[in-house]
Amino acid sequence: MDAAAREAQSGLEWRVTVPEGATVTMEEHEAGGAAARACAWLLACFATAWSWVAGFARKVWRIAADDPRKAVHGLKVGLALALVSVFYYTRPLYDGVGGAAMWAIMTVVVVFEYTVGGSVYKCFNRVVATASAGVLALGVHWVADRSGELEPVIVTGSLFLLAAAATFSRFIPTVKARFDYGVTIFILTYSLVAVSGYRVDQLAALAQQRLSTIAIGIFLCLAVSMLICPVWSGAELHLLTTRNMDKLADAVEACVEDYFAAEEPTPAARQSTKSKSDGYKCVLNSKASEDAQANLARWEPAHGRFGFRHPYAQYAKVGAAMRACAYCVEALSSCARAEVQAPPHVKRLLRDVCARVGARCARVLREASRSVATMTTSSSSRTLDFAVADMNTAVQELQGDMRTLPSTVLAAKLLAAETTSLMDTMPVFTVASLLVEISARVEGVVDAVDELATLASFKQVDDDDDDDDKKGETEMTIKVHPLNEPDTDEESPENKTRKA
Amino acid sequence: MDAAAREAQSGLEWRVTVPEGATVTMEEHEAGGAAARACAWLLACFATAWSWVAGFARKVWRIAADDPRKAVHGLKVGLALALVSVFYYTRPLYDGVGGAAMWAIMTVVVVFEYTVGGSVYKCFNRVVATASAGVLALGVHWVADRSGELEPVIVTGSLFLLAAAATFSRFIPTVKARFDYGVTIFILTYSLVAVSGYRVDQLAALAQQRLSTIAIGIFLCLAVSMLICPVWSGAELHLLTTRNMDKLADAVEACVEDYFAAEEPTPAARQSTKSKSDGYKCVLNSKASEDAQANLARWEPAHGRFGFRHPYAQYAKVGAAMRACAYCVEALSSCARAEVQAPPHVKRLLRDVCARVGARCARVLREASRSVATMTTSSSSRTLDFAVADMNTAVQELQGDMRTLPSTVLAAKLLAAETTSLMDTMPVFTVASLLVEISARVEGVVDAVDELATLASFKQVDDDDDDDDKKGETEMTIKVHPLNEPDTDEESPENKTRKA
Repeated sequence: MDAAAREAQSGLEWRVTVPEGATVTMEEHEAGGAAARACAWLLACFATAWSWVAGFARKVWRIAADDPRKAVHGLKVGLALALVSVFYYTRPLYDGVGGAAMWAIMTVVVVFEYTVGGSVYKCFNRVVATASAGVLALGVHWVADRSGELEPVIVTGSLFLLAAAATFSRFIPTVKARFDYGVTIFILTYSLVAVSGYRVDQLAALAQQRLSTIAIGIFLCLAVSMLICPVWSGAELHLLTTRNMDKLADAVEACVEDYFAAEEPTPAARQSTKSKSDGYKCVLNSKASEDAQANLARWEPAHGRFGFRHPYAQYAKVGAAMRACAYCVEALSSCARAEVQAPPHVKRLLRDVCARVGARCARVLREASRSVATMTTSSSSRTLDFAVADMNTAVQELQGDMRTLPSTVLAAKLLAAETTSLMDTMPVFTVASLLVEISARVEGVVDAVDELATLASFKQVDDDDDDDDKKGETEMTIKVHPLNEPDTDEESPENKTRKA
Repeated sequence: MDAAAREAQSGLEWRVTVPEGATVTMEEHEAGGAAARACAWLLACFATAWSWVAGFARKVWRIAADDPRKAVHGLKVGLALALVSVFYYTRPLYDGVGGAAMWAIMTVVVVFEYTVGGSVYKCFNRVVATASAGVLALGVHWVADRSGELEPVIVTGSLFLLAAAATFSRFIPTVKARFDYGVTIFILTYSLVAVSGYRVDQLAALAQQRLSTIAIGIFLCLAVSMLICPVWSGAELHLLTTRNMDKLADAVEACVEDYFAAEEPTPAARQSTKSKSDGYKCVLNSKASEDAQANLARWEPAHGRFGFRHPYAQYAKVGAAMRACAYCVEALSSCARAEVQAPPHVKRLLRDVCARVGARCARVLREASRSVATMTTSSSSRTLDFAVADMNTAVQELQGDMRTLPSTVLAAKLLAAETTSLMDTMPVFTVASLLVEISARVEGVVDAVDELATLASFKQVDDDDDDDDKKGETEMTIKVHPLNEPDTDEESPENKTRKA
């Protein structure tokens, strides 16, 4: 966008200067000069507009290419609307905007959401709120009808009180999370029915007609939403969680690598580590989208590997544990960027053991991610628990090295007569303590994942069979891993975060 | 709520046991026993329901008491709806649900939002989208009318394409942020007009009537929203920012205090520091609500101290700087909770200087918060810059002490013959380096606040006048500070965070 804007500006200047030169030769005929200038101005405007449009089109194309499901969603909405309109076009009892068709169309437009969970949430809210508000309004209407002169007072008074109470109820967190849309529809339906001038028997027929039309809209909407390339909130949440876990793993490794990088890396290498080590930022910023998806996912019927009462709330806890870990990774990555750095020969003393801790933390996170992605635990819980044990061994080694660091440095000093003060060891020590803290928080993530495995009753993979190919285990882990990621979109988690 | 549930259960047990005792004496007449049991069951149900209702009512009451503006908002919506309904009740041309009244009521219900910014955003989107979609649909309708048999194809085809394109456009971040609601209304209006069976001249009259009704709804809605206790998104964002800054200041101080607390504090004292040192969590979680408020605030007209083009986007940057600081505070607070602690006599060596750095960081944050809250900078930029300079002096002292720490510890060891290894100093060193990093990030917050001051052209307070009462300055600072906080709601920032 910025590049496009700059391009547009330079285009503008270039096109303006040419006629400016031309006007010098045409100084005598003013009118012609003015026309040429106007023409140039138009051309410049056109060029600017064109490059803006081109930049915008590129941006839009990138969104669609990154996640084709978004484009498909647009087509699905178009299809649902076309179906409803065709349905009403071909019916003899079609009676224009004022009639029944309107409510079906309105329902499809308002209720169709990107994920199935979102659509079900809105459908459920719409039906329940319309029905309950309709019944209530009919009752009040009946009472008001009998009361003669008091009618406007009763109707307006009840409208005021109900609207006030319903609006206020949206501030209650549970209502906000589950019935926000329903409250709007409740107020809307109640007002429309209560204020209407119809008699009660007319109203009952109207209500029945309206409900049946809404039912048609909802049926079409849910059918299109679920049958054509459905996007499930639960699956999105699941994928977001495993991707964030992998990113966190990459970030831990890359940050440690950054810190201990012996010489200045080449810009290309720096770029690649940078994008890896920045992965923790996705984790930091994905709370809102996790919460939103978990909220919608609870409305979804059982699908694929997700049962009806899949513990979506636990994903939020896994997310919180990952964020706690990411806070520490952030502190670690700021150490790598700090001005005051330990001298290289001091860094070297802890480099290997720190790299090992970082790699093993990353391995634990990847194993946990794999367990969540495949929804399996090994029956002997071997892989993940072994990874945790390995990590803890590495942490203990690191703590041992930290304890002996001062004497090691002093010994090195005596031997090499280098100008090393103990002060120089301090920054490395900070990094090491952060790594210890990170490993503790990685265990927190593992605990949350274990709870998820229990709640969602992950399938126990019986790995007695492959006890004989233990040596092939690491390769297997690596080979299995890419299967977790669908082959389409590399960038979509960021988009998801941005979307929310 | 939990307490209420427990109460309910115990109530249930108590009420059930009494008739159970009674049935023993009545064993012979079964019917009487069954009746008594049914009666007891009903009573128990009633008690459970009652205590549930009571708990719920308490919760609702607390929400209203914490922020009475929420209750007022409910009343405002009720009032706006009552006004619209009265307006249509008293008009002779009133023609029931199908007619004009419906669109006015629908507009009020759908458009009325908690903040003025939210209402203006929806009103603007509604008007522009209705008008543009109406014009476009009339054009297509006219073309379709001429084309004879192709009419359904043209109408349905254009509906499909436009709905697909418009729905996809919601994935473009700018459109999502500013025109999300407008896109829905655009699709809705286009479908209703395009599918309608009316002739073009009928449609034009209908469109005019509908627009004028929507205008009435919007006028009423904006009038009630702006004139009766208005809630401005801009002011909310402003308040959220200054409150978070104060909380961060408290948290920095409290975390340092926690870490160096000489003995175990009393539970009451621990509770009070705990709530203070947890303040950083609000900062960590307020990104979503900051973004939402900044998005809505841009729609608001000038009000109070907020001009038309107030740089609301800069608040998001201040928020980001505060979050960067909060990540480090999180790491610091985890040090206070860590198992491995330095022995008290080592902690004592850095306690005073660390406490000073913590206090001065907090002071800088409070000064920055005061500057934002009062929207002033002192003409010589004295107070804030002095506070930053003080903080940097303290940080330099701390760095000096860190540098000499090993030798100090060794000297102390020789003198007191205590069993202190250099390893013991390491955790304190980690805390000290985190404090240095925190102070650097506090400067980042100050930079963001300075930019905000420039962009929003904060008023320069001429403090040449009070040069003579320099000694009274700190008192003045403290006295001025409480004025920044409105006197009503102590708890509302958490609610705001929760709400978002």
